[in-house]
Amino acid sequence: MTKSPLAPSEQPALPAIAGVTCRIARARYKEWDRCDLTYVELAEGTSVAGVLTQSKCPSTEVEWCRKSLPGGKARALVVNAGNANAFTGARGMEAVDLILNLASSHLKCTREEIFVSSTGVIGEPLPRERANDGLKQAFSTEPCDWESAASTIMTTDTFPKMATVSAVIGGTTVHLNGIVKGSGMIAPDMATMLGYVFTDATVSADFLQEMLNAATARSFNCITVDSDTSTSDTVLAFATGRSDAAALEGFDDDGADAFQAALSDLCRQMAHLVVRDGEGASKFIEVAVTGAVSDESAKKVAMSVANSPLVKTAIAGEDANWGRVVMAVGKAGEPADRDRLSISFGGMTVARDGVVVPDYDEAPVAEHLKGEVIEIAVDLGLGSGRATVWTCDLTHGYITINADYRS
Amino acid sequence: MTKSPLAPSEQPALPAIAGVTCRIARARYKEWDRCDLTYVELAEGTSVAGVLTQSKCPSTEVEWCRKSLPGGKARALVVNAGNANAFTGARGMEAVDLILNLASSHLKCTREEIFVSSTGVIGEPLPRERANDGLKQAFSTEPCDWESAASTIMTTDTFPKMATVSAVIGGTTVHLNGIVKGSGMIAPDMATMLGYVFTDATVSADFLQEMLNAATARSFNCITVDSDTSTSDTVLAFATGRSDAAALEGFDDDGADAFQAALSDLCRQMAHLVVRDGEGASKFIEVAVTGAVSDESAKKVAMSVANSPLVKTAIAGEDANWGRVVMAVGKAGEPADRDRLSISFGGMTVARDGVVVPDYDEAPVAEHLKGEVIEIAVDLGLGSGRATVWTCDLTHGYITINADYRS
Repeated sequence: MTKSPLAPSEQPALPAIAGVTCRIARARYKEWDRCDLTYVELAEGTSVAGVLTQSKCPSTEVEWCRKSLPGGKARALVVNAGNANAFTGARGMEAVDLILNLASSHLKCTREEIFVSSTGVIGEPLPRERANDGLKQAFSTEPCDWESAASTIMTTDTFPKMATVSAVIGGTTVHLNGIVKGSGMIAPDMATMLGYVFTDATVSADFLQEMLNAATARSFNCITVDSDTSTSDTVLAFATGRSDAAALEGFDDDGADAFQAALSDLCRQMAHLVVRDGEGASKFIEVAVTGAVSDESAKKVAMSVANSPLVKTAIAGEDANWGRVVMAVGKAGEPADRDRLSISFGGMTVARDGVVVPDYDEAPVAEHLKGEVIEIAVDLGLGSGRATVWTCDLTHGYITINADYRS
Repeated sequence: MTKSPLAPSEQPALPAIAGVTCRIARARYKEWDRCDLTYVELAEGTSVAGVLTQSKCPSTEVEWCRKSLPGGKARALVVNAGNANAFTGARGMEAVDLILNLASSHLKCTREEIFVSSTGVIGEPLPRERANDGLKQAFSTEPCDWESAASTIMTTDTFPKMATVSAVIGGTTVHLNGIVKGSGMIAPDMATMLGYVFTDATVSADFLQEMLNAATARSFNCITVDSDTSTSDTVLAFATGRSDAAALEGFDDDGADAFQAALSDLCRQMAHLVVRDGEGASKFIEVAVTGAVSDESAKKVAMSVANSPLVKTAIAGEDANWGRVVMAVGKAGEPADRDRLSISFGGMTVARDGVVVPDYDEAPVAEHLKGEVIEIAVDLGLGSGRATVWTCDLTHGYITINADYRS
């Protein structure tokens, strides 16, 4: 698969996170010549938080994570790539059971401390023997770097996605690393595809969950590639507590705000990487809505624009077709007044108070649309609600990838 | 534009409808060599009903129709093709005003009896002089046949769309003709694009509205091409009362049920024609959902499947990718239980009770997917709610048409 034209030109250098060890192996879930099983060992005392798909037909793995998260403790993460093990009934649980048993006895911990994700084709049970061979292989292999782990969780992704940030807690620097995969079946109102955050900070599971919810709301839940919500979406955050920084239990603790800011920044970076690898993407699009009656209303309007196939194909064609933006605002079903609506591309106002601006000069707008990052701003002129979401354009590449993916 | 592969192989012969006279003219709303203004004169005493877009940013024409419909009377319909006159503020109303004045003085009737629609690009005011020249031309031209009228209201459509049905009221046959246009920006929960029904029956405006609402709910509001709701969607029904059949005022009247059935049949035929001319369409897809907790819930699930780009690209690729159907059911947000879900293609069950059927034979299913009409059935296994909706596949043709439409 050719690398997305929106891929970062260079990869960030991720530091080691004390208490986290990654290993990869070849389970051969598909007929391919690459590693497809990622095993991440976490130090004793690691706390965990997670956000999972809101699909009513989730995968077995998602159900397992949902059940285990209240325990708040994690010792390992196993990610299988090439098979989503979703909609596979009892047979799907067999492979997950085996993974839980193998890993928990290897680490001498409870099954509830093992977190599992699978990603790939829906409807085929994860082969038990391959999971067995792959995981045992991983136990005895040398630890790998972050880029190898980020590469091993990929499916239709065209580049490994990683990000790193740090925060200072009472004078001590803690690190947060994130790896994420996702390219298609990306939609709002859930944690998108598979994303993992690792930090050496000490954070209670409850507080980690609270901060992850906040970070997710403005990152993973604000992106869309194709409006299709996956059955397997999972974002997990692990805090090993191996740094010397003071433990965080709530926002009154020194450094908690800095940690939240760092976590939110990391999640936003990770979410943007997913959009940049959106199936067939050639443009990264930011849709900012202001002047809505509420933030919630602004987000619905922004998502209506970001999910509109007609807006997305117009951007693919480098066409400043603001009429389609009007259409998408109108169909959102949220309060809007045609005669107060303003629209701009790349900071240049094209329509104000419901009509095209006098002496509209399309040339500089057309120039902006030739770029890689496209900014669409909509001011509804009604209130102070605002939201920003991110998407990519809809191109022939999306059709090519998805009209012949499974076969 | 090449004709859609889903176009009917032959056009129906539409009878004359007493009290209806169609004329067409060249207003030259775009630089093209075709008629683009349709003028339909209606006999005195014609009653009218209508269903309009629910867009919050509707066109001037839609606002005019909404204002005039309560009067219940119509003497003429004017349809402009090539310019939607939407999002054009006061300047858009100038052209509509001119049309209302010209037609009402020509027919010696009130402005409220003149119905106007415009379709085409959004954001450019309808040129007043061209509307003036075109409409005057139409007044003095010879009447035309139904196919010419259906052709003149087209924009990106690749074939004219017409249908005809009849009903017997107290021994007298009445006729209903319909013409419709629409190909892109087609989505649920509104009357889709421009559709017009003409009948010689005598029906009170209120009862015509009641029957049109019922017919629309299961036809135009059950189709989607691209989930994008237009700013200009309009369906109007005109009853000239020129047949000898008894007047219809409500369902207690003899023949009213037959008329409703005929009207519903006509609207369904018209809606299917729009899907068959969906931008880039190569397959006509029926999505039938049963076993939902309510009909409303069934429709939401069916629309979630019909609007899923991943389902639509799979059908384009002739891939029986039922995993994507599961995904689309799951993301609908309606009650669903993975372990009760059954899915079939072309009447062949591929998954039952949440897993693929034992000894699943993909060959006959693959054969069905090579056809032109694809049937997807989902049984949720929860209740007795059901709904059927129609869509088309998502192909390279859609991208080609929409990435470079306006320019």
